[in-house]
Amino acid sequence: MKLATKNNGSRDGELMLVSRDLSQAVSAADICPTLQAALDNWDELQPKLEARYQQLNDGQCNGAFEFDQKMCHSPLPRAYHWVDGSAYVNHVELVRKARGAEMPESFWTDPLVYQGGSDTFLAPFEEIKMPTTDWGVDFESEIAVITDDVPMGVTAEQAQGHIKLLMLVNDVSLRNLIPGELAKGFGFYQSKPSSAFSPVAITPDELGESWKEGKVHLPLVTHLNGECFGRPDAGVDMTFNFPTLVAHAAKSRPLGTGCIIGSGTVSNYDRSAGSSCLAEKRMLETIEHGKPLTPFMQFDDIVRIEMFDLRQNSIFGAIEQRLVKS
Amino acid sequence: MKLATKNNGSRDGELMLVSRDLSQAVSAADICPTLQAALDNWDELQPKLEARYQQLNDGQCNGAFEFDQKMCHSPLPRAYHWVDGSAYVNHVELVRKARGAEMPESFWTDPLVYQGGSDTFLAPFEEIKMPTTDWGVDFESEIAVITDDVPMGVTAEQAQGHIKLLMLVNDVSLRNLIPGELAKGFGFYQSKPSSAFSPVAITPDELGESWKEGKVHLPLVTHLNGECFGRPDAGVDMTFNFPTLVAHAAKSRPLGTGCIIGSGTVSNYDRSAGSSCLAEKRMLETIEHGKPLTPFMQFDDIVRIEMFDLRQNSIFGAIEQRLVKS
Repeated sequence: MKLATKNNGSRDGELMLVSRDLSQAVSAADICPTLQAALDNWDELQPKLEARYQQLNDGQCNGAFEFDQKMCHSPLPRAYHWVDGSAYVNHVELVRKARGAEMPESFWTDPLVYQGGSDTFLAPFEEIKMPTTDWGVDFESEIAVITDDVPMGVTAEQAQGHIKLLMLVNDVSLRNLIPGELAKGFGFYQSKPSSAFSPVAITPDELGESWKEGKVHLPLVTHLNGECFGRPDAGVDMTFNFPTLVAHAAKSRPLGTGCIIGSGTVSNYDRSAGSSCLAEKRMLETIEHGKPLTPFMQFDDIVRIEMFDLRQNSIFGAIEQRLVKS
Repeated sequence: MKLATKNNGSRDGELMLVSRDLSQAVSAADICPTLQAALDNWDELQPKLEARYQQLNDGQCNGAFEFDQKMCHSPLPRAYHWVDGSAYVNHVELVRKARGAEMPESFWTDPLVYQGGSDTFLAPFEEIKMPTTDWGVDFESEIAVITDDVPMGVTAEQAQGHIKLLMLVNDVSLRNLIPGELAKGFGFYQSKPSSAFSPVAITPDELGESWKEGKVHLPLVTHLNGECFGRPDAGVDMTFNFPTLVAHAAKSRPLGTGCIIGSGTVSNYDRSAGSSCLAEKRMLETIEHGKPLTPFMQFDDIVRIEMFDLRQNSIFGAIEQRLVKS
């Protein structure tokens, strides 16, 4: 099933179903007004939504209209929990290597996560507004899952069944604010402004064989100003799969339905696949040339993040964001 | 105005008005179903809620009933943003001193904050369930504000007007999970489980002269197992007032209405006032005796957090939580 949230001017938007090929959409507001409301009562509503989704794909759905990704909010325009992992540990290792620091061995066994702000997500085609490029604006192309209610202490095996939806994320980062903020010891805050998510959220079954071992086995494609910047495979070099991240998040508290858990920047050891953020490219340049050559985002730069199935059809629609001066 | 959320079995509860003396309550669900919904449309709804609040205080409100704090959820049972400061910098200084570390000078001018989970807040009288006391369960008695929509880049002067409500918080902390987590460099996550808030949230005018300079000038009283543990004045030694914390939070992103911003553990240089968390007491013991004498919370320990006006009337009702084995 594919779901999206129409930006109808309200804070939480209007729930829509989107056809598998992203060509058609239909309102689901009569079943449930918003995606959060659907997640609040998923077991009861999911069959009703699935039935209409089937009709939509069969071309037999009253009220269906042409789907335009630009009408969408992020699937959850605001959420109650957004935690982002660093599941591609080779990326973290590279960050350390670029500054000549060893990475603790525990990073291979204990997930690194940060809690993010979730009250003001950007729409997938919304501009990123910043007062200055001096903050070092970067994108991070990632995958995220949305869970239902997860009890505290859940195991990774149990966690798999709590993953209800998947999306793409642009975890916007302000690289030049990070060192000062991390030096204070309490983690990111100002350096992690509002993130944006793909127009469409999907149930895991939509991925077929590409969803296995709790990972998405497809390339995540990032373009910067129309040129391919990276297409690492999200199923490769993911040290912690999604169920493991969910279990980590629920160690000392339950998670409320609608909790969003991100993978962190997708990154492969095979550097020919390119990168999913400017910082990684700059680190590779630093290791090779002694200094970074690629700048962070400049005003009017456009980042586009998308994932395609084995037939080269877009799965989630695209995140496409221009950096503009606020 | 005093507002509360009745635990009616739903995820977001039912909005109530509570009389100034906390003796009577009345549903406000016909005006607005939940507190978040009221904040979503505050300018329009606030006068209607104020009118009923006036009737309630005048004893002329149909449907009024005896108020029982134990019927309450936290005012926002779940929220879209919860960020906690460390505005009482003397407390942070003490933490450092106890482990023989210098505190950077910048801590006096640049607020230290962390982003917390906000999907599963505890009710004010709800048990704190943990599988073990080995995690070092501690309370932190604090004050928090709730904002409306705050634009990115707001100044502290402008921020004052965005503070709509105040509450008390118990920011539950797992002290023995903190060192390992902070060593990883991404801040707190598992070490900060679900927090609880006071039964009642109030508009700032309810504090009269005790709300000035963006601070609450009254003692915050903490009892542990019925004995007074601390009553430091929240208006004393608060290095960053609430408008400054709001401006800090909004530096690189807007804040969505219902954003909760905490003060951090209330702490006075005058140590005769006692403390607002076990960790601080243990640090003072470490400095004096070379080691802590007071243990962290044991199962069945009860913490109670409350604030009284100049006539010794409870302002927010109490947070009262027992630690139990999950």
